[in-house]
Amino acid sequence: MSGAERLARAALTGIIEPGDETGGRLLREYGPLEVLRRLTGPGRERTEPGREQTAPGREQGRSRGSGEGAARAGAPPGGSLSGVSAKRLDGYRNRAAAVDPQRYLAAAAAVGGRLVCPGDEEWPSQLDDLGDARPVALWVRGRPNLRMWALRSVAVVGARACTAYGAHMAATLGAGLAERGWVVVSGAAFGVDGAAHRGVLAAGGATVAVLACGIDTVYPRGHAELIGRIAEQGLLVGELPPGGHPTPSRFVLRNRVIAALTRGTVVVEAEYRSGSLVTARSAQRMGRFTMGVPGPVTSGLSAGVHELLRGEGVLVTDAAEIVELVGEIGDLAPARRGPVLPRDLLDPVTARVLEALPARATVDARSVARDAGTSGDEALARLYELHSLGFVERHGDAWQLASSAVRGTSARRGGA
Amino acid sequence: MSGAERLARAALTGIIEPGDETGGRLLREYGPLEVLRRLTGPGRERTEPGREQTAPGREQGRSRGSGEGAARAGAPPGGSLSGVSAKRLDGYRNRAAAVDPQRYLAAAAAVGGRLVCPGDEEWPSQLDDLGDARPVALWVRGRPNLRMWALRSVAVVGARACTAYGAHMAATLGAGLAERGWVVVSGAAFGVDGAAHRGVLAAGGATVAVLACGIDTVYPRGHAELIGRIAEQGLLVGELPPGGHPTPSRFVLRNRVIAALTRGTVVVEAEYRSGSLVTARSAQRMGRFTMGVPGPVTSGLSAGVHELLRGEGVLVTDAAEIVELVGEIGDLAPARRGPVLPRDLLDPVTARVLEALPARATVDARSVARDAGTSGDEALARLYELHSLGFVERHGDAWQLASSAVRGTSARRGGA
Repeated sequence: MSGAERLARAALTGIIEPGDETGGRLLREYGPLEVLRRLTGPGRERTEPGREQTAPGREQGRSRGSGEGAARAGAPPGGSLSGVSAKRLDGYRNRAAAVDPQRYLAAAAAVGGRLVCPGDEEWPSQLDDLGDARPVALWVRGRPNLRMWALRSVAVVGARACTAYGAHMAATLGAGLAERGWVVVSGAAFGVDGAAHRGVLAAGGATVAVLACGIDTVYPRGHAELIGRIAEQGLLVGELPPGGHPTPSRFVLRNRVIAALTRGTVVVEAEYRSGSLVTARSAQRMGRFTMGVPGPVTSGLSAGVHELLRGEGVLVTDAAEIVELVGEIGDLAPARRGPVLPRDLLDPVTARVLEALPARATVDARSVARDAGTSGDEALARLYELHSLGFVERHGDAWQLASSAVRGTSARRGGA
Repeated sequence: MSGAERLARAALTGIIEPGDETGGRLLREYGPLEVLRRLTGPGRERTEPGREQTAPGREQGRSRGSGEGAARAGAPPGGSLSGVSAKRLDGYRNRAAAVDPQRYLAAAAAVGGRLVCPGDEEWPSQLDDLGDARPVALWVRGRPNLRMWALRSVAVVGARACTAYGAHMAATLGAGLAERGWVVVSGAAFGVDGAAHRGVLAAGGATVAVLACGIDTVYPRGHAELIGRIAEQGLLVGELPPGGHPTPSRFVLRNRVIAALTRGTVVVEAEYRSGSLVTARSAQRMGRFTMGVPGPVTSGLSAGVHELLRGEGVLVTDAAEIVELVGEIGDLAPARRGPVLPRDLLDPVTARVLEALPARATVDARSVARDAGTSGDEALARLYELHSLGFVERHGDAWQLASSAVRGTSARRGGA
């Protein structure tokens, strides 16, 4: 992807709202450069209305005209972007006039963040299941490779105002998934989300927080320390550019990213017809597993989960049951077939971390970090990537080479 | 069925243990009279061993010989009853020597009980699904017609040492099922069973206790008052003859009768791999619905239920969901198609109770009893029979004619 295209996508994250399928369609039909050009340049509708029906992405000469006025007059489908209402176009143009992609990239870089675009090596291709609701790009903060981590990830979500039982279950599942080498994705909210993240962090595990705001923005404020810790030890991910603020609709739309990113969604506590169930159902539609943790029938906070479990959701009571279910997808479970990537293609730091693992013994992440000459968080990030790739396994606090990787090592060493 | 056959079955309830499939097979092959004759008369093996292979039920001349000795010597399959081990035959013969069917019948009658045999009008034919484990006969105590009541019944079972949550749920479901006109079957045990029965009784509903002992025996002692109340307002049912005592295996085998008698089994609380799950699974095998009430994952008493719900069991949270599920069986749901029995074939008391219902208004059971000139319990017994037959409906505490029954009434009255 060209630098210009990346810059265009950076700008478009501030123009197209998360989940906006019209925007997604425009990107698919015209490409980011052309969409941005048409939204930021002066309109051209009045002069060449017939040209709007041309094939997507085809290079067209720029033309000038009183585009905004024409759009306001209700010109579409003969408008500057086919099939976009005047009102929506107005919104795009207004936001386009204010964006500064260079400032976004600088602000992201200032907190150690980066932009991950479709087509990038780090882009999680499963997000394409969202169709035109696919994020324009993702702002990512943290060491690990998002695509690698997301390969073996599960979402744990639920009510903000959860009970002590819900918090206990979220933390227990988070820790249990971490100890089995799985990455836990959630939304950094109060209640179930926070408990799940904390359970993972306490177990020295891998966790991703998908935010409904910019990756440089702390929301909720009460989770400042938690979010900071996730940025260090895990990943913060957001669709909105730096400085973006959450709104109720952004919270709901953020959930689709959580659902798409992971192999399955576990709902811990949710009221009847609550937002967590929306995440679970959208996961279901994309062919992901939806799971629920039951609770007392007498608790309103379990009513939504029970509703899910009376439908397509699978009842789970511990991390082992979750892994048993989501681990079944053959084509996404490289551990069973051995590494999916040759050692030689690993980046240097990851390769060093892999080399730090003894052929047959188990070690803890701290020893790996020491032997590889990396920080603890760096080692952990790489270990989870290597886990996704099938090179290593985690059992409790111990890491070891996967048996297939050991065989590969032996063969190579034998041949040397 | 002849009086002699009934007497033979009465005796055999004291000889063949509940769930004994060998005994069931013998009954099927030889019939009750012949089985009893061979077990009580002197043996004949030594004199005519070849005759043992003759067709079942064929009349054979009696012969005398040292049968018991031959059986003890391990004569089968050439023994007096084909395919029965010497040890088992010994057990049958020892018990047969002690039974007194006339005393059983007198003891049952003394507590207002009766014997219901396969082929009787009151025999619940769904028990035939048990195959050779079908009860020899059932001892029944209480006014209502067992077959009628069992037609629209659900089992609610669970742990003896249940939590306050389990007891609450059992009582709530019992009351809710009663208010929807459903009969609740359970085992009169402490914990979930007792709570379910009590919930039904408190709602003026219909409940059946299937006992692992004689219908004149109070077990557990602490439930003396409850069991007495069920005998008045509902039904006590047992496979063992009067005076029979419960044993651990009898408790387990009793559960198969609960499962077979009802359209579905709801497990409220059960430990991992507990007896209630055996009931639920045997229900499943017989094509009944198995349901479970979830609870906190942190409670060991919900672990068994969750195990069930991760398999074939359906998660239910209230009586409406249970009725929605079990009410789906078309051929057992006469209410949808109107009464299955013409009015003229109703027994006089039931017909009087039906006549006591106004054409369009709703009434409570007490008014029905007054107008029909019966006791309250008698009226309730008949109302539930009429409900099974599709003549009436219960909504909360109110009874009313089913719409199809009302049409029948109008037509008849119009024609008179």
